[in-house]
Amino acid sequence: MRLRQPAFFPLPAAMQTLEIQTRQRDEFVDITRELQQIINRSQVESGSVLVYVPHTTAGVTINENADPDVVHDLLLTLRRLIPKDANGYRHAEGNSDSHVKASLMGSSCQVIIENSRLVLGTWQGVYLCEFDGPRLRQVHVQITAIA
Amino acid sequence: MRLRQPAFFPLPAAMQTLEIQTRQRDEFVDITRELQQIINRSQVESGSVLVYVPHTTAGVTINENADPDVVHDLLLTLRRLIPKDANGYRHAEGNSDSHVKASLMGSSCQVIIENSRLVLGTWQGVYLCEFDGPRLRQVHVQITAIA
Amino acid sequence: MRLRQPAFFPLPAAMQTLEIQTRQRDEFVDITRELQQIINRSQVESGSVLVYVPHTTAGVTINENADPDVVHDLLLTLRRLIPKDANGYRHAEGNSDSHVKASLMGSSCQVIIENSRLVLGTWQGVYLCEFDGPRLRQVHVQITAIA
Repeated sequence: MRLRQPAFFPLPAAMQTLEIQTRQRDEFVDITRELQQIINRSQVESGSVLVYVPHTTAGVTINENADPDVVHDLLLTLRRLIPKDANGYRHAEGNSDSHVKASLMGSSCQVIIENSRLVLGTWQGVYLCEFDGPRLRQVHVQITAIA
Repeated sequence: MRLRQPAFFPLPAAMQTLEIQTRQRDEFVDITRELQQIINRSQVESGSVLVYVPHTTAGVTINENADPDVVHDLLLTLRRLIPKDANGYRHAEGNSDSHVKASLMGSSCQVIIENSRLVLGTWQGVYLCEFDGPRLRQVHVQITAIA
Repeated sequence: MRLRQPAFFPLPAAMQTLEIQTRQRDEFVDITRELQQIINRSQVESGSVLVYVPHTTAGVTINENADPDVVHDLLLTLRRLIPKDANGYRHAEGNSDSHVKASLMGSSCQVIIENSRLVLGTWQGVYLCEFDGPRLRQVHVQITAIA
């Protein structure tokens, strides 16, 4: 995982992009540490961060990052509810399920920043949700500072 | 589809409202071009746009706008998971499924603006999700400029 | 339900936290009035409010607050789709379903503020979604003012 942008951050408004290589067809990748690093470099103390996934078969969600079994059970449930093959699918690429899962998780999330830290709950982490990997994915990150 | 507000846009903060006539009980209407037009008129270069649906049987999502079969398969899957009639529904209007689908898609989405353009992925479009049409729907659009 | 912070609100940016005691395993608690009270105290006229739930078995959604049967049918449908016990769950706490439901509803929502009022649709209310109660829950509220 690496930043496409240099570490120098001229404007709090500047969008940064993370690039993430996923390894599985469906997988949650914890990007919490990378988000906090972008906030550190921005020197923004208060505000919020918008995390945006510019893909249609991947999404982003916030959920538990303590016990990896939670992510396992999330993926298991999404696979059970939305199987890869189902009667009536028309999209020829064989990834209709991936598109549905992406919309269910959503293409963005927001987290409050206070004292230059992400205000996450004790057990929360921010996950890129891969539903049609492995692929090289992008995550756009935009910080809004509040005076 | 038309803007209720005049083209003159006195403040970047001003909320604008799109009005959209849907044609089916459930349907996704691509509103990407209308959003870009509002951004053009606002002359905002960097920031974000909040797209908000003030209805409880409609939502908004971002997904593929290249192959219409993707939207077909999304609607098909939502119908399969959440049928119009199910044992135990109490709401007397016969649209409990529409309310559930609205919450699953969500009532708002956000997109980053850079260089006065929506920062969407190659295949992404923004969709109003109708789940209890046909109706005349509103979509509120608020731009936040970042210096 | 009570505010942890004093009523005095030094900066529009300051985050406030609601504390909410839930009563059931799964339940939607309408927090619309409390959000409007925070906006009133902030004296912000235009902008938006970010409502953020720092938990992994609770979420937030916007849906109908006129007929309580709608919330009943939402909870019923989520329970049917994601049962508490399912083959293959690994997470040992017995609340894998709660984590899935939290991600489906999402950990945050945003509402536009105009004329110091939440811009909600006629039938919309903002709900804390409890999926593993009863518990004492927090909801972070951050207002962004737009000039």
